[in-house]
Amino acid sequence: STSSCEDLDRVSTLLQLCVDRQYVSPDQTNAELFQRGMSCVYGPLGTELRRNLLEQWWHSVTSSSAQVFGINTLSSSKDAAADGPGQLRIVESDYLKHIIEQQELSKEQLVQEVQALIHRSPSLRTDFLQGALEQFVPALELVNRKLPFGLAESGLCFQPSDGSGCPAEVTQTSLVWFCSPRTSSHWLDHWARQRLKWWRKFARSPSDFSSSDVPVEELEGAASRGVRISYSFPWGQEPLETLWSRGHAELLQTHKGVRSKLQYREGRKSVPHVVSVSGNMDRGVKAFLSNSLQQLMKQDGKQKLLRRKVLKLHPVLAPVKVALDIGRGATMELRQVCEGLLQEFMEAKIPVWPGYLETLPTSMEQLNAKYDEMGVLFTVVISDNTLESGLLQVRSRDTTIRETKHISEIKNFLSRYISAADNI
Amino acid sequence: STSSCEDLDRVSTLLQLCVDRQYVSPDQTNAELFQRGMSCVYGPLGTELRRNLLEQWWHSVTSSSAQVFGINTLSSSKDAAADGPGQLRIVESDYLKHIIEQQELSKEQLVQEVQALIHRSPSLRTDFLQGALEQFVPALELVNRKLPFGLAESGLCFQPSDGSGCPAEVTQTSLVWFCSPRTSSHWLDHWARQRLKWWRKFARSPSDFSSSDVPVEELEGAASRGVRISYSFPWGQEPLETLWSRGHAELLQTHKGVRSKLQYREGRKSVPHVVSVSGNMDRGVKAFLSNSLQQLMKQDGKQKLLRRKVLKLHPVLAPVKVALDIGRGATMELRQVCEGLLQEFMEAKIPVWPGYLETLPTSMEQLNAKYDEMGVLFTVVISDNTLESGLLQVRSRDTTIRETKHISEIKNFLSRYISAADNI
Repeated sequence: STSSCEDLDRVSTLLQLCVDRQYVSPDQTNAELFQRGMSCVYGPLGTELRRNLLEQWWHSVTSSSAQVFGINTLSSSKDAAADGPGQLRIVESDYLKHIIEQQELSKEQLVQEVQALIHRSPSLRTDFLQGALEQFVPALELVNRKLPFGLAESGLCFQPSDGSGCPAEVTQTSLVWFCSPRTSSHWLDHWARQRLKWWRKFARSPSDFSSSDVPVEELEGAASRGVRISYSFPWGQEPLETLWSRGHAELLQTHKGVRSKLQYREGRKSVPHVVSVSGNMDRGVKAFLSNSLQQLMKQDGKQKLLRRKVLKLHPVLAPVKVALDIGRGATMELRQVCEGLLQEFMEAKIPVWPGYLETLPTSMEQLNAKYDEMGVLFTVVISDNTLESGLLQVRSRDTTIRETKHISEIKNFLSRYISAADNI
Repeated sequence: STSSCEDLDRVSTLLQLCVDRQYVSPDQTNAELFQRGMSCVYGPLGTELRRNLLEQWWHSVTSSSAQVFGINTLSSSKDAAADGPGQLRIVESDYLKHIIEQQELSKEQLVQEVQALIHRSPSLRTDFLQGALEQFVPALELVNRKLPFGLAESGLCFQPSDGSGCPAEVTQTSLVWFCSPRTSSHWLDHWARQRLKWWRKFARSPSDFSSSDVPVEELEGAASRGVRISYSFPWGQEPLETLWSRGHAELLQTHKGVRSKLQYREGRKSVPHVVSVSGNMDRGVKAFLSNSLQQLMKQDGKQKLLRRKVLKLHPVLAPVKVALDIGRGATMELRQVCEGLLQEFMEAKIPVWPGYLETLPTSMEQLNAKYDEMGVLFTVVISDNTLESGLLQVRSRDTTIRETKHISEIKNFLSRYISAADNI
């Protein structure tokens, strides 16, 4: 069908743009990781986009009116209890080599030694849940045994290969929320609403982000209810974040059934319930890239039809807020003005692209097309006119309108624009 | 000697404080990791401190006048070339179990299968150098083949166990700088100066941070010169960051000797030289905690001599900028005022401690002692007086002076104080 052709076209356009514009490093295997929603090698722009997304997540979770503490646990653990299927172990290859090179060992001895080595090798985490459950006890002291509260963490987790022989990395976010049993269902709904609102806040078309209850037959482990937040990619839905109402079984198991350690102030000997919220931020990056890509048909000066691609990333997510370029005029003097502005922007923590360093001459048209594909919010052009009158040109990605501003007001204009977008 | 006794005392005081005040999670093994300068389980305050430190590092490196791009590479790679000693491999334990459970295999077949499994298992990175060398080619395109520029990355790296059987995690920072051969020595000095300045910027006693040339006999691999930045702990010096002038051998090797891919604009067929700057931010956290701990003797009201401990962390590093508490008055009304202020602070991204939620009554004296140990910059106390006149009490950690301010000016006062400290 035409529609699926268009979708395929959209997919390859998105991928090509991500590679061309330094969101994703150019490499076939790497592009596949990106497509699968795994952590991949990000170029400078992708790295900043992911940083911005993680920063927003962290701020929204730890600065909500609810009490949430950030923690940092280890990515590997020596806990033998974690000895289930699909375990990834960190094995020192020297040790393994040393064992199999021992000529005098019988086959049985060899097998025993290898088994012992596996057993004492640390395993890599697949999510943040276990770490948070372990930190529940010190955190409970911190809040004087008062519920509810949450523990937040973000970073790398590892996924078994599902038979391909190639384990993958995922940038995950995790909120583990501890509450009284009778409020756990309420909190699941609360966090599902909050999280969906968060995803939609940064979207160009918010309805592509949706949430739905997890069907009973797909409930995992101890979970009694689940909610999934998904993104509708051109090729189908993929989950971004999953919330589970998990009860208290895993918390009890982690603390070996010692209920006294787990009891909270108002609880009369009951054990807290756990609501977990875990997200895949690599897929989040992919969702926002896909969501923000706008393709427009446009006539150029010679009446030729051009396809214009714009990455309309939300102002707080856009990796580059402003590009600095020079127009007509004495290059040396204009560059000096750019250097000064660059410094000023950086001190104000406005991420800036030093386009004036480019040594290849390009037309303004080509430059704008490039910056639109990069998702750069504004392009500032310094010219002879700036040297004479202090006036410069500012072009907006979203309106494509060029305005004239005085050089003294440009920094405050950008700062105000970004913080206004942040506070919506 | 008395001095070493005092030092030991200082060490145990620091450790106890870190555990008591939720910088480091309470656990013997965990405290040992912290002491060794490895990544450990951080409590809420340690997590924020490390976040702040990494954020400052990222900003200082990517927003310097030099061109530095952030990248994100994978923590594991399938590159067989990395097959040196001390390799950490991610092995799927199911596969290994499957091999050794095959009864029909001879010992030789078993050994072969295990070897093949090791060989195809991805290895974990020990530093960020290799990833940056691989990303040199796309980055060179980005800058139109113009040197110098750098690639920055931060995150987890893994260290072999050195015989203990327990590999460790370290939060590392890395800047890999590419420049022309004749400027590499100049750049090594440049970055060594910049980095030392950075460490000292946040120090209470800057002279505890020092840099020194690495003695010739300690040069690693291809390096022709090295500089080490160290911190003088009470128990001796430990390295925080190491800079190497590495030549071009590793860059050439990574790109299999294809010089044409590596050549830069002004270079006349020469290959760039590499300067690497890599830091251990877990040890950085420990250094700043140690550096900021001040112990004072103080007489209390009853003429008893008390030891007062204050964590005088730099304002931009301090995990909690302000604590909100209530004094005498109608608890319900006062709490409402606190809720309002809390919201106001969070929206302004001022990290705040909701002390008013504490359910255990404590004296102001005890509260101040606790907040001083936490390194909280300011304590705001709301009382009956606030309800009547809008006035509240603000106590400073550093001066211990209590001032009266109007509730309408407190947020701006804090914002200005923090951003002033940031711009020094």
